[in-house]
Amino acid sequence: MTEKIKIAILGGSGYGGSELLRILLFHPNAEIGLVTANEHAGKPVSAVHRNLNGLTDLEFATAPEDLPSLSDIDVVFFGLPHGQALSLIPRLPAGVKAIDLSGDFRLDDAELHKKFYKTEHGGDHQQGFVYGLTETNREAIRSAGRIANPGCFATASLLAMAPMAKSGLLDGSVIIDAKTGSSGSGAKPAANTHHPQRMNSFYAYKPFGHQHLPEITQHLQQIAGMENEIVFLTHSLPVARGIFASCYMETTAALTNEDLANLYAEFYRDSFFVRLVDGSPDINWVKNTNFCDISMHSDGRRIIVLSAIDNLVKGAAGQAVQNMNLMFGLDEKTGLVFPGSNP
Amino acid sequence: MTEKIKIAILGGSGYGGSELLRILLFHPNAEIGLVTANEHAGKPVSAVHRNLNGLTDLEFATAPEDLPSLSDIDVVFFGLPHGQALSLIPRLPAGVKAIDLSGDFRLDDAELHKKFYKTEHGGDHQQGFVYGLTETNREAIRSAGRIANPGCFATASLLAMAPMAKSGLLDGSVIIDAKTGSSGSGAKPAANTHHPQRMNSFYAYKPFGHQHLPEITQHLQQIAGMENEIVFLTHSLPVARGIFASCYMETTAALTNEDLANLYAEFYRDSFFVRLVDGSPDINWVKNTNFCDISMHSDGRRIIVLSAIDNLVKGAAGQAVQNMNLMFGLDEKTGLVFPGSNP
Amino acid sequence: MTEKIKIAILGGSGYGGSELLRILLFHPNAEIGLVTANEHAGKPVSAVHRNLNGLTDLEFATAPEDLPSLSDIDVVFFGLPHGQALSLIPRLPAGVKAIDLSGDFRLDDAELHKKFYKTEHGGDHQQGFVYGLTETNREAIRSAGRIANPGCFATASLLAMAPMAKSGLLDGSVIIDAKTGSSGSGAKPAANTHHPQRMNSFYAYKPFGHQHLPEITQHLQQIAGMENEIVFLTHSLPVARGIFASCYMETTAALTNEDLANLYAEFYRDSFFVRLVDGSPDINWVKNTNFCDISMHSDGRRIIVLSAIDNLVKGAAGQAVQNMNLMFGLDEKTGLVFPGSNP
Amino acid sequence: MTEKIKIAILGGSGYGGSELLRILLFHPNAEIGLVTANEHAGKPVSAVHRNLNGLTDLEFATAPEDLPSLSDIDVVFFGLPHGQALSLIPRLPAGVKAIDLSGDFRLDDAELHKKFYKTEHGGDHQQGFVYGLTETNREAIRSAGRIANPGCFATASLLAMAPMAKSGLLDGSVIIDAKTGSSGSGAKPAANTHHPQRMNSFYAYKPFGHQHLPEITQHLQQIAGMENEIVFLTHSLPVARGIFASCYMETTAALTNEDLANLYAEFYRDSFFVRLVDGSPDINWVKNTNFCDISMHSDGRRIIVLSAIDNLVKGAAGQAVQNMNLMFGLDEKTGLVFPGSNP
Repeated sequence: MTEKIKIAILGGSGYGGSELLRILLFHPNAEIGLVTANEHAGKPVSAVHRNLNGLTDLEFATAPEDLPSLSDIDVVFFGLPHGQALSLIPRLPAGVKAIDLSGDFRLDDAELHKKFYKTEHGGDHQQGFVYGLTETNREAIRSAGRIANPGCFATASLLAMAPMAKSGLLDGSVIIDAKTGSSGSGAKPAANTHHPQRMNSFYAYKPFGHQHLPEITQHLQQIAGMENEIVFLTHSLPVARGIFASCYMETTAALTNEDLANLYAEFYRDSFFVRLVDGSPDINWVKNTNFCDISMHSDGRRIIVLSAIDNLVKGAAGQAVQNMNLMFGLDEKTGLVFPGSNP
Repeated sequence: MTEKIKIAILGGSGYGGSELLRILLFHPNAEIGLVTANEHAGKPVSAVHRNLNGLTDLEFATAPEDLPSLSDIDVVFFGLPHGQALSLIPRLPAGVKAIDLSGDFRLDDAELHKKFYKTEHGGDHQQGFVYGLTETNREAIRSAGRIANPGCFATASLLAMAPMAKSGLLDGSVIIDAKTGSSGSGAKPAANTHHPQRMNSFYAYKPFGHQHLPEITQHLQQIAGMENEIVFLTHSLPVARGIFASCYMETTAALTNEDLANLYAEFYRDSFFVRLVDGSPDINWVKNTNFCDISMHSDGRRIIVLSAIDNLVKGAAGQAVQNMNLMFGLDEKTGLVFPGSNP
Repeated sequence: MTEKIKIAILGGSGYGGSELLRILLFHPNAEIGLVTANEHAGKPVSAVHRNLNGLTDLEFATAPEDLPSLSDIDVVFFGLPHGQALSLIPRLPAGVKAIDLSGDFRLDDAELHKKFYKTEHGGDHQQGFVYGLTETNREAIRSAGRIANPGCFATASLLAMAPMAKSGLLDGSVIIDAKTGSSGSGAKPAANTHHPQRMNSFYAYKPFGHQHLPEITQHLQQIAGMENEIVFLTHSLPVARGIFASCYMETTAALTNEDLANLYAEFYRDSFFVRLVDGSPDINWVKNTNFCDISMHSDGRRIIVLSAIDNLVKGAAGQAVQNMNLMFGLDEKTGLVFPGSNP
Repeated sequence: MTEKIKIAILGGSGYGGSELLRILLFHPNAEIGLVTANEHAGKPVSAVHRNLNGLTDLEFATAPEDLPSLSDIDVVFFGLPHGQALSLIPRLPAGVKAIDLSGDFRLDDAELHKKFYKTEHGGDHQQGFVYGLTETNREAIRSAGRIANPGCFATASLLAMAPMAKSGLLDGSVIIDAKTGSSGSGAKPAANTHHPQRMNSFYAYKPFGHQHLPEITQHLQQIAGMENEIVFLTHSLPVARGIFASCYMETTAALTNEDLANLYAEFYRDSFFVRLVDGSPDINWVKNTNFCDISMHSDGRRIIVLSAIDNLVKGAAGQAVQNMNLMFGLDEKTGLVFPGSNP
């Protein structure tokens, strides 16, 4: 491919948009043609995302009234709040691909969607979407025109459990205790991200009711016909970035640590961004990167798998670009092989 | 004194109010008769300040329309946003004392007040106010009916420099480089206290223009006729609590470290809450306490004095209670001798 | 009781010792007769615990060679590293009570003790010890001469599950996902508490192997004959203080949220330091206090109970003093009713 | 240049070495031939710097006994503790360039060196060294064989003041109030970087005595013949990365904000890594990057200039690579144009 992929980012002022810009500005095969943020229209991108000062002359535009005007664009990333991509994506010109970072098109079941998101379901348009968990869905993503990019918690949880599910080992109780950094709540100040309190806080929220639960369940069913009910609880960490998922699984047959090591090594053999680690993953080692670190631990029939990602990269913008790479015939790593830092 | 001091707190939902409650609920001579917070009226105090859960049955009331109804109250603490106490305090019944934590009545000069606060000046009512820096103003505070409680930066800076000023040594350039924790911005979420960014931030704000500067200058003039122009710069720290002031002073005559040690020891001989320390103060050691830690360093005619306080305690509610104690004939330490923690 | 309890603290330089001092210096019925720290012998306590500067003239002593010299002491707190109280407590003079904050005398089973602690077991001396989880063991503690003070993780986990266990409801799988602040690793700098890395870290450690697991299991057996195997996983949080335990329990019979509310309210009716909260506990609201905040959530037969404590207070020194109060006939709250702070 | 620069890193396990690896592994013209760390010899680099897991197969070697064996190396980076490069660099084979990140060869004055570093001075070897503040010393660096890479505080302070100095405006008192993140203390755990205390700390250290002071003074003399005595005070911030310098200068002639804007814009016209910003720099916006953000503020004859860098990048490894680029005829930006993140 010699020409660059022409990109539009709708919703570029939030943290998802910020990370898309950070990655795509340095992507060798990408060119950002449009980035919108109504409340910042006319301002330089670098006045809002001051980390990009000196690195781009882009300015924020208002969202286009007339979506067909995007016909010279190859792919549109939607970084809008939940509910807004729903009516926009169906109006895109034919041939323009779309990657949605919101939850609007993740759930096939209309009832579940309404229950968890309190918004309309995509209806007929839903069928055109492929769930963008790259490591489990590569082939479908390659030929997709529409991607529902996974939620951050769902990404960490599913990558931790997919090898078990695929092998039919997810046949007992499953409990996911997940934790997220404060950037998961978005760029808008709110009571739960108020620094004086958040810096000393750790608490749980939405017991039994988080909207990533049906997404996890749906995808496990897709890849393995798994029918378990899952207990899923999310917690808030006093860090900016990172998701850590502790997944507790009971199996019918006992597994050794070596069984697990082999199973996961095989499953992720061609997945550059999944790193199997000894001891435990640590969000410190994946921050600002597209990596997902995973460790596996067995006590016989009780299995613990731990995973860590950066919620804004592998949990959002990084995975979105990884999917874009596949959709345009590129190596999935293109533009994403950058290291995190220590410390 | 056998009867308890009957207290009203107007504006009890912010951090100043929160700290007043934390302290006064355990004060042996105090009884809280009223605490207001319009947006939380009817709610238990402990539903907002969840640290007080189990420790009080108080409920938030709406602010009284009719201030004379406070006539059974001995002292009213004003924890309202800047500008609101201005019209309220003059309407208090005769005999009801007032301690204002805002900046409404700190500056005698109407022009300076308008310039820095953009609100009306107290006018004739200003004269009734005593500036409540306890350690330098004890006698006036004892007989005061109205206290303008000092700003947090002003408290840390003035305690660091008062011994120099009083001895006439503040005769050269003065530069104050001050730093505050995020609780100084209040309980309301805002862009500059958004956790994902604040936790990795350090920045300056309001160069030459912070509203605590005229308050510092005015009080140095009061205690020493000092006429220097001061350079004052405030910075934001990624901690919840604490102010640290680095004060750089040039003197005409050289001073040894021993001179400084003697000068400060003498000045603060009877001031329990000022602790002179070796090395450097650290906000860690004063957090949650009414202490001000100070160290002094000389290189001849160039003097550095460092001070650390908890902005919400010695820098606000603690000092307010210290002043109340004096106003009611109590030992100034009453209800304020509680330790900080390590870590 | 008119005379004060005469206290010795062996091992006063660590965080447990630090918190004992912070609490006991202000306890109305306590008097500290001796506090030891060999590496700081001769230094003022306030030179090490600088939060106590101005609040005590105590100096650190060397540990006494001759334990019978402690015969004028009423109770000895042991804040020593694991393994050191083992040989010391048996040599105390008759009549001197002991409260051990280490794990030396928590496990009755010698095999389990050796497996998890790699030190000798207390042997015959073990019988003299009462497990000091105040809320479940009050009567035994009142008449005890020796207390094995619970581990911090065990305290949070057991308080979350005790009402279920006592009612015979802990009859299915139990998974505890526990998280601790960095002070849990002690006052000595180490790689896992190195600030540049810890501040952005979250990771798990000791899967299936943490030494608080047998302590939890043993006490659940004591109070309910419960025989379940428990999955217990500990994680490290980037905060200084706080433990949060997320306990996942499957029950044979379904329970409503109202059932849980009634069960826990009844069980903790007379327990001042357990606060049942809506939503979720948050370590922010219990920091620096002796409170344990708990919330309960049901989805039928799947129950989640969440608890939060300060690891150094209710998880160590505070509970130790609570036990001392009972051992000496005092109200268990004496000296422990101090509020946390917001923020 | 078609061949890659062959690089050795002596001392690759500390934070300086860690950052050199993070940068050089992705540098298009660099190839790492050797990286040493005696205590980790034989281990994969990615086992120590786990952020590099999956990104390199390099292993740590022991430091070579025989420095002439480095003759196939083009440039050696020294990331060793202060005092160790002193005897090593003189023994390098002719033609092998050296960049020293320590303070061993920064000071020309032997007396000052001994006073501040307590180690021997480089003596005759000192003359071969060029001080590597890229923006003020480009031409000398291009032709240098030996670089003394500046200290982190010195970099931030000098970049803030160089335009003033060069224009002869630094003719009055100069006070630098500097603050650093905890990674500045290195990768080895110590009391002052112990997380439970550091996370709530802010304190000063080494008043009048920090070893970067003579380095700042010397370079200001070099570029402007400036003879002022400078007051320099360093403080510790509770973040991992970042230096913030608040520089207070009195000038004989008054300067407007526009004067300052013009002066700095002109001085840094060709310096990609210096960004002049409105308001204030913030360490958040430079973290993980080679940028130095600067703002200038005038009140007439009193000037404040603020600067922010990442201590490990522009303050150490990044600037070292920037210097290497010049020494080998490359664009100074090569391999260094990577963005920071928000948040």
